[in-house]
Amino acid sequence: MSAEPRGVTPEMTPARRIDHVAVATRDAGSAADWYVQHLGLRRVHDERVEEAGTRLVWLEPDGESLPGTARFQIVEPLRPGPVATYIEEHGEGLHHVCFVVDEAGAFLEQRGEEAQQVFRGGFGLPCAFLKRTPPGVNIEIVQKGLDA
Amino acid sequence: MSAEPRGVTPEMTPARRIDHVAVATRDAGSAADWYVQHLGLRRVHDERVEEAGTRLVWLEPDGESLPGTARFQIVEPLRPGPVATYIEEHGEGLHHVCFVVDEAGAFLEQRGEEAQQVFRGGFGLPCAFLKRTPPGVNIEIVQKGLDA
Repeated sequence: MSAEPRGVTPEMTPARRIDHVAVATRDAGSAADWYVQHLGLRRVHDERVEEAGTRLVWLEPDGESLPGTARFQIVEPLRPGPVATYIEEHGEGLHHVCFVVDEAGAFLEQRGEEAQQVFRGGFGLPCAFLKRTPPGVNIEIVQKGLDA
Repeated sequence: MSAEPRGVTPEMTPARRIDHVAVATRDAGSAADWYVQHLGLRRVHDERVEEAGTRLVWLEPDGESLPGTARFQIVEPLRPGPVATYIEEHGEGLHHVCFVVDEAGAFLEQRGEEAQQVFRGGFGLPCAFLKRTPPGVNIEIVQKGLDA
């Protein structure tokens, strides 16, 4: 957590909404099966994010989504990196929550973080993981239109 | 995880959407401050759930929510119980994801769980934590209308 928390000022844009919640797992395919079979979620996308070295399977409720509905993401590490390390240290489980922001680089700079943290993540969208967060909470931001 | 995963059949109602994502913490007030100050979320509710022995602080994005937008919940244990044990074992951090269902008792029974798990949770709504989940993922269900 930042030693000197700063409030959201008129110059700081807030997070707009929760984009997704993610679980980290060693096998995204079989993990996704569970949520499909038990919760009735449906697969909407399955992709490899080269820059992050991950496979992402995206799930969402079937048929009754509303415009701001958050998605559920399954993350599988494809090579050594933060997600693989997380699983080694914590085991599989809830991994991060992601908020939609207007502009990823500006959002980071407004909070004293490096705009260079931005990379192309799921769906090729600009995203980043915040370096300063409360303990035990991984927070991602993603830049997308409110209707995306 | 269930030894014999069963698929969502026509008789099984699916989860409708993600209601909230929750972090467990020892001090919900100061934890909430961080999300208000850094992400621009706003407090919408602060309550004690007697049956669960928890304090819940509810946060949501300020001003640009869409219908179906998931909320962010801060959970603080007020007495020994599952949340206090979780923090002792795992530390503070991401704790659970909650899905909206049509009818909590029926949802449990359709999946071979006990309808008696249902209790009055946040906002006095019927909710339950699933006993059979993938490793490391606490899943809550809450019974509410799609517009609630």
